[in-house]
Formats: sequence, C-alpha cells, structure tokens
Amino acid sequence: MTYQAPLADILFNIEHLSSWEQVTSREQYIGIDQSDVRAVLEEFGRFCSETVAPLSRTGDELGAHIVGGTVRMPDGFDKAHAQFVKMGWHSLQHPPEYGGMGLPRVVGAAATEILNGSDMSFGLCPLLTDGAIDALLISGSEDQRARYLEPLIVGRWSGTMNLTEPQAGSDLGRVLTKAEPNDDGSYSVSGTKIFITYGEHELSENIVHLVLARTPGAPDGSKGLSLFLVPKFMVEADGSLAERNRVECVSIEHKLGVRASPTAILQYTKATGFLIGEENRGLEYMFVMTNAARFAVGVQGIGVSERALQQALTFAQERVQSRPVDGLSKTATAIIEHPDVRRMLMRMRALTEGGRALAVATAGWLDLAHDSESADQGAAGLMAEFLVPQVKAFCSERSLEVTSLGVQVHGGMGYVEETGAAQLCRDARILPIYEGTTAIQANDLLGRKVMRDAGNTAQRFLSMVRETSAELREGGTEFADIATGLATAADAFEASLVWLLETVRENPNAAYAGSVPFLMLAGNLAAGWQLGRAALAAQAKLQEGDTSPFLKQKMATARFYANHILIECETERLRITSGAMSILDPDLPI
Amino acid sequence: MTYQAPLADILFNIEHLSSWEQVTSREQYIGIDQSDVRAVLEEFGRFCSETVAPLSRTGDELGAHIVGGTVRMPDGFDKAHAQFVKMGWHSLQHPPEYGGMGLPRVVGAAATEILNGSDMSFGLCPLLTDGAIDALLISGSEDQRARYLEPLIVGRWSGTMNLTEPQAGSDLGRVLTKAEPNDDGSYSVSGTKIFITYGEHELSENIVHLVLARTPGAPDGSKGLSLFLVPKFMVEADGSLAERNRVECVSIEHKLGVRASPTAILQYTKATGFLIGEENRGLEYMFVMTNAARFAVGVQGIGVSERALQQALTFAQERVQSRPVDGLSKTATAIIEHPDVRRMLMRMRALTEGGRALAVATAGWLDLAHDSESADQGAAGLMAEFLVPQVKAFCSERSLEVTSLGVQVHGGMGYVEETGAAQLCRDARILPIYEGTTAIQANDLLGRKVMRDAGNTAQRFLSMVRETSAELREGGTEFADIATGLATAADAFEASLVWLLETVRENPNAAYAGSVPFLMLAGNLAAGWQLGRAALAAQAKLQEGDTSPFLKQKMATARFYANHILIECETERLRITSGAMSILDPDLPI
Repeated sequence: MTYQAPLADILFNIEHLSSWEQVTSREQYIGIDQSDVRAVLEEFGRFCSETVAPLSRTGDELGAHIVGGTVRMPDGFDKAHAQFVKMGWHSLQHPPEYGGMGLPRVVGAAATEILNGSDMSFGLCPLLTDGAIDALLISGSEDQRARYLEPLIVGRWSGTMNLTEPQAGSDLGRVLTKAEPNDDGSYSVSGTKIFITYGEHELSENIVHLVLARTPGAPDGSKGLSLFLVPKFMVEADGSLAERNRVECVSIEHKLGVRASPTAILQYTKATGFLIGEENRGLEYMFVMTNAARFAVGVQGIGVSERALQQALTFAQERVQSRPVDGLSKTATAIIEHPDVRRMLMRMRALTEGGRALAVATAGWLDLAHDSESADQGAAGLMAEFLVPQVKAFCSERSLEVTSLGVQVHGGMGYVEETGAAQLCRDARILPIYEGTTAIQANDLLGRKVMRDAGNTAQRFLSMVRETSAELREGGTEFADIATGLATAADAFEASLVWLLETVRENPNAAYAGSVPFLMLAGNLAAGWQLGRAALAAQAKLQEGDTSPFLKQKMATARFYANHILIECETERLRITSGAMSILDPDLPI
Repeated sequence: MTYQAPLADILFNIEHLSSWEQVTSREQYIGIDQSDVRAVLEEFGRFCSETVAPLSRTGDELGAHIVGGTVRMPDGFDKAHAQFVKMGWHSLQHPPEYGGMGLPRVVGAAATEILNGSDMSFGLCPLLTDGAIDALLISGSEDQRARYLEPLIVGRWSGTMNLTEPQAGSDLGRVLTKAEPNDDGSYSVSGTKIFITYGEHELSENIVHLVLARTPGAPDGSKGLSLFLVPKFMVEADGSLAERNRVECVSIEHKLGVRASPTAILQYTKATGFLIGEENRGLEYMFVMTNAARFAVGVQGIGVSERALQQALTFAQERVQSRPVDGLSKTATAIIEHPDVRRMLMRMRALTEGGRALAVATAGWLDLAHDSESADQGAAGLMAEFLVPQVKAFCSERSLEVTSLGVQVHGGMGYVEETGAAQLCRDARILPIYEGTTAIQANDLLGRKVMRDAGNTAQRFLSMVRETSAELREGGTEFADIATGLATAADAFEASLVWLLETVRENPNAAYAGSVPFLMLAGNLAAGWQLGRAALAAQAKLQEGDTSPFLKQKMATARFYANHILIECETERLRITSGAMSILDPDLPI
C-alpha cells in the first residue's frame, strides 16, 4: 500500500482554480511563485510517501492505547512526528512573525491533503493544532499569542478543540463545564469533555487545550459559553514549561477507524485556564477554529479518497480475471479492462478530483478573504463561507462512496484487512460526523449562508456557474456534455433555492427536511463547476501546444463527472421540492 | 443492542406479496396456513432475540481464531448453535422425507432474515449448509442423498461451497484444483481453496465440502469443472463417522466484519472426494447452490438493515439534542423530531421494507418454480431467475447505505465500536462481494436473464409493474405519488432495456458499462413495485375496517420510497443511455 502525492493535479488546480494571481498579489505573498510551490510540495510529498504512509497499516493494527493515564502511540509515530516538526512542515501556511513559512492557504490545503492521504490518524494532530493557531491569531491576547503561538506553529506543541460533552454533541448550548474566576485573573475549569482528538499523547512537549465552558451567572444555552486556553503543562512568561495542570485523560475510545489517533475523554478538575477574548463570546471564537477545521476535514476526505483510488487502480492493473465482454480475446485480462471496473475507477477519480478542485478554489477565496487591503475581501469571504460547508459535506460524504468502491474493486481481497482497502473505509467514516455532522453543515448552509443574505451569495455562485457553462458551450462540441450537465444542474439548484427561500419561513420543517439534499446538490454542482473550469484551462493549454496527456485526461474526467455525477442534482431537487411532505407525514412509522 | 424480529411486516408481506394462495395450493404445503407461519416465526424470533442476538457484539470482539489447525469460535456460539439444532430450526424449509419441517421457501426466507438480523456471523453457517442441501437434493445420487442429507438438514452437519482459489475469484474458469479418479470410483482431490465460509469449525460433527475441481483431460475453462463432495470425516454407509479426510484448514482470514464467521483457507491433499452428477457439469450444479445462496445473501442484507434501523430508531428516540427548527419549543427535543433525522430514518426504513417486499415476492416465485405440477412453473421460474440478481444486488448494496445511515444517526457515538452501529456497517460490507459481486450479478441479469429471451421476461416484469401503477392511479389521490413514481421509473427501465438490447450486440462494452446501473435501476423499480402492491393491500384492509396503524404506515412508507428512492431510476437511465462513452473514452486516465 504505497501512496504518491497527486502533484500534477494539485499544481494544475492551484495554477488554474485558486485565484492564484490575486492571492499572490497580496503583500505577504509577493515573490512566491508556482515553482516555489512545486518545490515545497514535491519535497513534502516525498517525506509523506516515505515516512508517513508506511505508518498507516501498523498504526491501524496497533492503535493508540492508554496505560495508567499515559497514551501510548503506535510504533513509529514518535519518530515520524519528530521528523515532521524538525523539517518544519507544520509551519507551512502560518505567519513568519511566529516562525511560520508564510505560504498561502491554498498551499497549506494541498499539504493537508497529502498528509492525510498518507495517514489520516497522523494528519489529525496538525489539523487540530492549525485550528488552535487560527483561534489564537484572531482572538488571543498579545500575551497569549507571544506565549503559545510560536511553539504551536513550529509543531513542538499541539492543540485541541474541547467542545463535546456526553449531553452536548451537535447541541453546544448544553455544555456544562464550568469556569470559575480566580483572584489572579485566571479561571478554574471543571468538567468532562469527550471525543477530544489527540486530547492526550506524548508526541509534543505540551498540549494547548481550547475549552468551551460556562462562567458563573452566564446566560443559558450557547450564548453563555466562553473559550478558555488550558495548557497541559503551565507555561512561564519565558515560554518554559512548569507544573502539570489538572487535566487528566480518563480513557480513549475504541473506534471504527483512525485508530492511531487517540480520542480522549478529558477530566478537568479545577484546571487553570485563561479566558480568550471576552466572556460569553466563546462560540464565536470557536467558530474560527471550526470553520478552518471543517474545511480541513473536507480535505481529509480528498486525501483518503485519493489513496483509495491509487490502491484500487494498482490492483485493477495487476489482477487478471475473466475474458473481455466484447469477445475479442480468448484469454483473461487485467480487470481494469472490464467496463464496470472502469466505471468504478472513474467514479472514484471524478469524485476525488471534483472535491479537490472545489477545495482548492475555496482555499483561494479563504486566502482572499483574509486580505484586508482588497476591496473584494467581503465578497471573497462570503463565497468562502458559502463553500466551506459544501467542501466539508461533499468531500466527506463522497469519501465514503470512494473508499467503498475501492473495496469493491478489490473483490474478496478488499474485505481482508491486510489489503488496507477496508481501513480507508473505516478511517473515512468519521469525516461526515466530526467537526459538525452533515446535517449541521446543511443547517449552516441553509440557515446562515443562504438565508442571512436572502440568497444573494447563492445567486452570485449560480451566475458564476452559468458563466462557466456558457464558456463551455462556446468551447466546442467536446464540451457539450459538460455544458449541458452544468446548465441542468444549475437549474436544479435555482429551483431548489427558490423553493427553500419561499418555504423556510412558513414551514421551516419542510425546508429543513430538504437541507441535506440541498447541501449535496450544491456541493455536487460546485465541484462540477470547478471541473468545468479545469477542462477549459486544459483546453487552453492544449491549444497553446502543450501535449501532456494530463490535459485530455482532465477533460475526459470532467465529462465523466457531468454524465455520471452532476445528473444526481436533479434527483436532489426532486427530494427537496416534492419530498418534504413524505418526511413530515404524521402517519410515518417513526 | 437488542433486536426484535419485524414480524408484523414479514407476515403482511407473506400474506399479500408472496403468491401465498398459489404456493400453499401445492400438494406438499396443503394445510399450512398463516397462523402456523405466525406461530413458527414468533417462536423463532424469540429464540433469535434471546439466544443469537446477544452473541453479536462479543462474537465481533472476540472473533474466530485458529489454533494449530483447530478453529476456536467465540464464547457462546457452540451453545447457541447446539440449541438452534436441537430446536430443529435448521430444518424449517427442507423436505420432510429427510427430516425437514417442509415449510414453504417464503417462510424459510423470513427465518433467514431474522437469523441474520440477529447476527450475520451466526447466520452464515446454516446459509451455506442450505446451499449444499439444495445441490444434493437436485444433483446428488441416491446414495449421496441417503448418506448426507438428513444430518445436513437437521443441522448436525454443516456444508460449504469451495469455489474460489487465489487466481480464480469471479473467474471460475481459472480453477486449478485437481481431482484424479481412484479405482473404487472415488477421486483424490488436491488444491487450495480460499475464502471458504465456515470451512473449518467444531460446531458440527462433520462438514460436507462441495468442491469445484478439474479431472484429468477435462476441457480448459469453466466447461471442465466437476463438482465433488469431500467430507471432513469420511461417512460409512450407516451414517457413522470414520477417519479424518485429507483436508486441512491452513489459516483463517482477518476480516473487516463477520469476524465470528471463520473464513478458511483449505488445503486439499489427495482428499477423498465423490463426484456429484457427471464430470464437467460442476458449474451447472454449483449454480443451484449459488442461486439459493445469492438470494439468501440479499436476505442477509435485509436482516442487517433491519437491525441497523431498530438501533438507530431507539437512539433517536432517546437522544435529546437541540431545539426544533420550527421554533415552537424552547427546549431541546429527542433528535427523532429533527427533519433530517426523520429523513435518514425513513430512508433506512423504506430501503429495508422495499428489499423485504421484493425478497418475499421472489421467494414466492421460487416456491412456484419448484412446483412441477403447475403450468405456471416455467413462467414463475423465469421471473424468479430474473429477480434473484436484483434481490442480491439491491438488498446488499442498499444495506451499505442503511447501515452507514445508522452510524450517522448516532453521530460521534456511532463511530465508537461499543455502540454496535459501526459493526453492522462492517458486517454488511461483504454482502455486495461474496456469492458474486454486484458486477457479476449485473452480468447475470443482462447477459443471461435479459438477453437469453430477448427481453421477454423483462417486458413481462414491466407490464406487471405498469398494472400495479394503473391500480394505484385508480386507488385515489393518496396514491398519486406512488403511481407517478412507478410509471416514471418504469419508463426509465423500458428506455434502458431497449437501448441495452440494441447496443449489446454492436458494442458490448458500451452495454456492459451500464450493466450495474441497469441492475440497480431494476432492483429499485422491483422493490418500489412491491411496496406499491403492499400499499394497495393496506388500503384494502383499511377499507375492510381494519384500524391497525401499521396499514397507514405501510402506505406512508411506500410514498416516501416513491418520492425519495424511485426517482433514482431516471438517474440510472441517464448513466446507461448517455454515460457509456465517457467510461470507454480512451483519453481517460485509467
């Protein structure tokens, strides 16, 4: 089970889909060019293939364990993590003033995909740390930033997000963890947090827990939550570590997948915590981490999908079984020649590349949204916010399909754990759940991203899709299928949007009954749109005389996507506009 | 994780969808009525809930192990299996002349669902044994039937199917195992068979292996395969056991799921085998087992889906989280009230009940196909053969979706193994692979069941669907959605059928590129059709004054199925009729 970073596709996407010129015209990125990006990602890809990817199977087999409050990582993780930190890989997209490399977010997203394609369990520690870094950068005090950011950014320390409690999963308003003010300005944090990814381990010297808790007299529900920084080891002003804080790992979960990633139950017993920002604004600050983490979870889905595709492709090229159905040969052939195996592999590829195209484009808008000098900042920010739940949901839900097809291509061999295909299914299964389930993403898309501006951003998205569809229409007959597919799917999106905006006020239950279908429709369309843009870019390069086979492949993949996947948008439209009543029917046996 | 046999739905289906009157007018079934069936299945359901279902989690955790050639089953399996045999449950649908209870196949199918809903690993031993019984009943010599059938039917012995070898999976023509004739009429069987379900264990006194092998000078490929009976312990004429045969379990697989079911690698070293029927007709005889086993695998999918549904439903009723989206309450509610959770649960239910309706109807035709006195035997047989790959593929593929939704309803709790929801996903994942992958079922449907009679059976199926759709249309506005859904899906089926029949000769690759979409379309339509029949039967009972809430629920579930699942047929049609070229495109990167 080897893994090669899909550099050709990643670099093509960065060049053509990520608003690269605008992004690199930002002052902080001036001077960074495509060849720098290629050099960094090639080197990182090599590190991941050689050092991280081989840990994946043994990490799964051995799993993380807890022995007397100490978490033992599977063999090899400590060494690989130390190398990851030493080579500076953790700092890729973080600001140079705190020790980061200062590369654009689109490059960071590419690295996240490569790392998680190598091993999701390994990738989760930096993923959560990135979220903590974002939260501190935006909401931390000067002292907090000075004390905690540099070691987090270089990767010597790691970060966690502590939201969930047994009674508070999707519903954070039910959080019970308490934070009582101490005389010195710190707080005493007490409570139980569950499902804390990398909540305890010894890969890093220290762990910075960001914890949602309730101060005395705070309002009920989600409006009474504050965010606290609770270090595992107390940190002196000079950055040196002091005594152990009163946060303990009670146990770790026995999970379906990502078994090398320790998922902790943490017990806080008057642990010393420091308020981030102001009281009762915790959820708002937490959303900064959550949004970055949601985007990254979508990217994890692309990583695990790519790995499943590579593995299935290799198997299908090597496995010889049955004669071709066209009867042209009397001898058995590699199964990749069988039409249905091609169908499965192309479905895997189109979903993976569609997700990647969408994520890279979104990363570009995320970069632009952080550019306070640009007049487009607001528009880019709204588009990024509109697309983040789609990246999360589309790439995570589709990774279930891709990794399951990966098993199917292997036949019986796929069901045997040694092959590794089944592990990818198990690993992927968490993606539509953590950092907000698919239903939570759907509420976010419909309830916040669409309704708050009465569908304006959604309409702007739609016009951009239609523009691409029109360009494809003009691009010649080779694009006819993609142009038609996009136009039809755009109609389905518009009809659903209109229906939802009309329905949501008079009958919110009926609208929300279609929220997940709408999210899946939007994500499907958005990915297809980006593949359409990629096909146009490929055609332009062909016309410039570039003869790389990659370009025709890109166009063929986009066509497959249109003919096999975009068409599902109309089915979702029917579910939304004609299916709500059969979900709300009081005669239903639920 | 408890399980209750879904008796109300099963009995309703048997009464209204299984051609019950015709089936029980067969001489061998005369006198059997619905109350007998209810009594048997109630008792069996109780046994399964109390004795088998509790083994499911521990069986998964402990798994089967091999120690020095001996397979150790997880704790509790031996006792439960002994009780299963003692209570006579294995003999339910087998002929009384060999110790069976002689109940119709529709009742046997119901029992198979209940047993596998309780635990798939436990259910696999009788499932394979049933296949061996069928093969011996139809193709065994008088001596073989006398010697082996009774202990197999009562469950004292178990049976296996030995097809796969490392180089021969879907492609049985590549089987290398050899059988050399001995002077006494027996054969010496040598070779390695892999993926042999319950290939070795000590639950039964003896194991009867049915083995595909090649005699000296036999033709190449699948036409040179013969079927051999190779007992684990030799059997004297009086039925007593003699010496151990030369078949050894080399190891068992470490699998994604059904971990309590030992999947053996068997080494045959001049093992004594007995030819079944004639030389070189092995594949034909094996198909008897295969067809019964394929049907049963579909039914396993229904069982595991039902269990996932029951578990998710219980969780959703108990788990309180978030306020209702309609804002009518300020307090958090059980998540079953949230529209998207209802959507997921209804999708699980509609797919499960759709599969069950299809399987029960098919079991009825299987019963009638075995009625040599009936003039309809041929027609029933063709319809059953047309539907068996659909039962296998629809119920197995959809069980992946249902069990995955089961995890999703649980949120983070679903990813923790202790909950049991994840296990159902892992168990189900084998269903679209073993007994012929979904692609093999699709080849069977298109290549044999549709093409061999130039689409006649498919057309007959289509007219029956249209008849039901017309009845629904006349049944009133409450059936409008179902009638329209069925009619639209029937059009999609017909357009696909016409296109495939036209295309398959001139461009077989293009036709087979759509073979799996066609199979999924057909299965979806067939299940929707049976739910439509069920809705009509429910309405009739309501009109007779029956006030059971089950009846309105049945109608509501059928409507949900039409609005949310039947609509996928048109998407499959587009894949078939417009998607082939984008699979066969030589520019594709595969």
